Amino acid sequence: MDIHTAMMEMGRSARAAARVLAASTIEQRNEALLQIRAAIAADRDDILAANEQDLEEGRKNGLEAALLDRLALTPAQLDVLQEGLSQVAALPDPIGHISDMRRMPSGIDVGTMRVPLGVIGMIYESRPNVTIEAASLCLKAGNAVILRGGSEAIHCNTTLGESLAAGLSAAGLPVEAAQVVSVVDRAAVGALLTMPEYVDMVVPRGGKGLIERVAAESKVPVLAHLDGICHVYIDADADPDKAHRIAFNAKTQRYGTCNTMETLLVAKAQAGMLPALVSALQAEGVEVRGCEASRQAAPDITVDALEADWSTEYLAPILSVRLVEDVAEAMAHIARYGSDHTESIVTENLVTAERFLREVDSGSVMHNASTRFADGFEYGLGAEIGISTGKLHARGPVGLEGLTSRKYIVKGDGHIRL
Amino acid sequence: MDIHTAMMEMGRSARAAARVLAASTIEQRNEALLQIRAAIAADRDDILAANEQDLEEGRKNGLEAALLDRLALTPAQLDVLQEGLSQVAALPDPIGHISDMRRMPSGIDVGTMRVPLGVIGMIYESRPNVTIEAASLCLKAGNAVILRGGSEAIHCNTTLGESLAAGLSAAGLPVEAAQVVSVVDRAAVGALLTMPEYVDMVVPRGGKGLIERVAAESKVPVLAHLDGICHVYIDADADPDKAHRIAFNAKTQRYGTCNTMETLLVAKAQAGMLPALVSALQAEGVEVRGCEASRQAAPDITVDALEADWSTEYLAPILSVRLVEDVAEAMAHIARYGSDHTESIVTENLVTAERFLREVDSGSVMHNASTRFADGFEYGLGAEIGISTGKLHARGPVGLEGLTSRKYIVKGDGHIRL
Repeated sequence: MDIHTAMMEMGRSARAAARVLAASTIEQRNEALLQIRAAIAADRDDILAANEQDLEEGRKNGLEAALLDRLALTPAQLDVLQEGLSQVAALPDPIGHISDMRRMPSGIDVGTMRVPLGVIGMIYESRPNVTIEAASLCLKAGNAVILRGGSEAIHCNTTLGESLAAGLSAAGLPVEAAQVVSVVDRAAVGALLTMPEYVDMVVPRGGKGLIERVAAESKVPVLAHLDGICHVYIDADADPDKAHRIAFNAKTQRYGTCNTMETLLVAKAQAGMLPALVSALQAEGVEVRGCEASRQAAPDITVDALEADWSTEYLAPILSVRLVEDVAEAMAHIARYGSDHTESIVTENLVTAERFLREVDSGSVMHNASTRFADGFEYGLGAEIGISTGKLHARGPVGLEGLTSRKYIVKGDGHIRL
Repeated sequence: MDIHTAMMEMGRSARAAARVLAASTIEQRNEALLQIRAAIAADRDDILAANEQDLEEGRKNGLEAALLDRLALTPAQLDVLQEGLSQVAALPDPIGHISDMRRMPSGIDVGTMRVPLGVIGMIYESRPNVTIEAASLCLKAGNAVILRGGSEAIHCNTTLGESLAAGLSAAGLPVEAAQVVSVVDRAAVGALLTMPEYVDMVVPRGGKGLIERVAAESKVPVLAHLDGICHVYIDADADPDKAHRIAFNAKTQRYGTCNTMETLLVAKAQAGMLPALVSALQAEGVEVRGCEASRQAAPDITVDALEADWSTEYLAPILSVRLVEDVAEAMAHIARYGSDHTESIVTENLVTAERFLREVDSGSVMHNASTRFADGFEYGLGAEIGISTGKLHARGPVGLEGLTSRKYIVKGDGHIRL
């Protein structure tokens, strides 16, 4: 069987399993999560051995250290994974809820019901934890999932797939509800992206190359963000203490996350606070690159920010700084160079803040808060399947609700249309 | 300038206009709608003359009568269009609303704000009214719109485009907020579908060929429904009077609409009600095609339903009928042959009804009501931009809310992440 036929077969069985899941009770789905936890405990040695095999082959194939690091699944991480399954099981049921049931002039009652999306395709790299984390969220929301991890993690993912099957089976749910693609063939990704009849949404997780490929090739809706070029704008009416604190935190609290500030915009009226901020950032090891005006305001900035800097996600201790006239120029800069991820304004002027909150077209727009808060857990979502910079369906940090849909429900008593 | 460059230019200016609209007040946008109404009144003779020119060329080119009929814009229809603009102006503002603002453990307040989508691409055929109807809804929701009607309506659409520009201009909004593609070139559609940087969503309106082409080629999310193969299922526990009334209404109230029943599923226990229902339908001029069991139950059915009938949207006085064992078999039939549009169960058994409402995976699922209710106005949406059978973003009848998005809003007071 060629890979396309195999993937179609997987899609067909996932679709059938999704119908069973949609009809299942929350007790059954939670039971499945706890049974998967138990299966992982039982398979612990096999899982760690499979991961060791992946690591060994990775070393042989000359994988770089950072990749090997992401690939490794330690006993402690396995504990966290198991604990995560219990946490997801404890979350409220994201489906079934009926809202806004209203009586219409015709006499019918109309409302909406939250239902599973159907079948989710996960495409990811390296980290084998994603196999369990993503499966648990998909199953909780009543979806079937097809998991396609990186070839470098194939042994561990395949073993984890067996734990998933054992758990589902023990809970009386079809094993096809969570299937791991255990064939190493890049064509599997292409197949997954081009069967909208069997896959309702694709969630890619990994480097920019992977996301770009998925976005370009997919015939299925994609939930993802390509870049996180996040901005903090320090307004003329900002409180300098808050501004300093927020800008410093947004850059330095973690460098490699998508909600880290990459560009700082400062109103000219606030240029006076720049030297102290730059020196604090530099003392922390951040390379600051500035426009000409900011370099005049803060001579410690010794690197020019070039045109390419404004559209670069450094994911590193580097920051670009630009002085702007006012909020309008800041918003124009964000519209031109931003990635629709997260932007924050620091100001004590509520009119300016409201304007920024309303007009900046990003998944998260903040006032007097660090961009680092853009996160499913910080937003109280209980879980995070990813962050979306698309405007349709889910936007910003996406929790369980992003794995559901709403349909209309109509109740009558023999009502006909006149 | 070739058509691709011209469309890109149109997209770029639409994106800029969308930013102005997003910052506009509801008063300004309503004023634009009323000014467009006034402009149409002023341009009335030109609009009717342009339509006459389209009709003349259509007759010369041998357009069929049904198409000419859709192409015609009568003075009475122009009155309706104008009245429609006032009605849309009177609807509540669909954007700006902030909901669910909640204090998180970190101290930040997190909620969502409803905002415009940005730029909508409308692709449609024949009916020039769509130009004004679609533009009014897009503008109301704060979006810019690019309107690409059929080549057969080019003169009328171009003239209506001038009325749109005059109205926008009189209200102090950029004329690029509603642009009519006035070049006859099929490549314009292809261009509109492949510039996601300038177009946020495409709404096709027209025949199945158009929708299929748009769905296949689009790199931009599409809001549409391909088929409306709607089902009524008469359950073993149905009230025969309600069942007769609903089935008759769902088929005969209008034949050409997407929410018309195309297949009737009847539990075997209810086979006894079939002869009277079939005879009522036939008396109304409906051709009934039945499976073997239904033909035995109702000998008046003289036409066999073939395999192809179950997946055919007749849009005509034709109905296919199938006897099924129970609700499970009915739902399996719907899952296999349905188009995810609208299905209704007739039953007095609330357990069966709840199961059907929950498990049938369609945009609208009904209990004891005619499928003909699946409509934006009947659902109280105030307007309808289209009906979607997709599961992401908007589903079922889509009103103004389908032309909006929600983004996260975070408010702090110097909050940083620890």
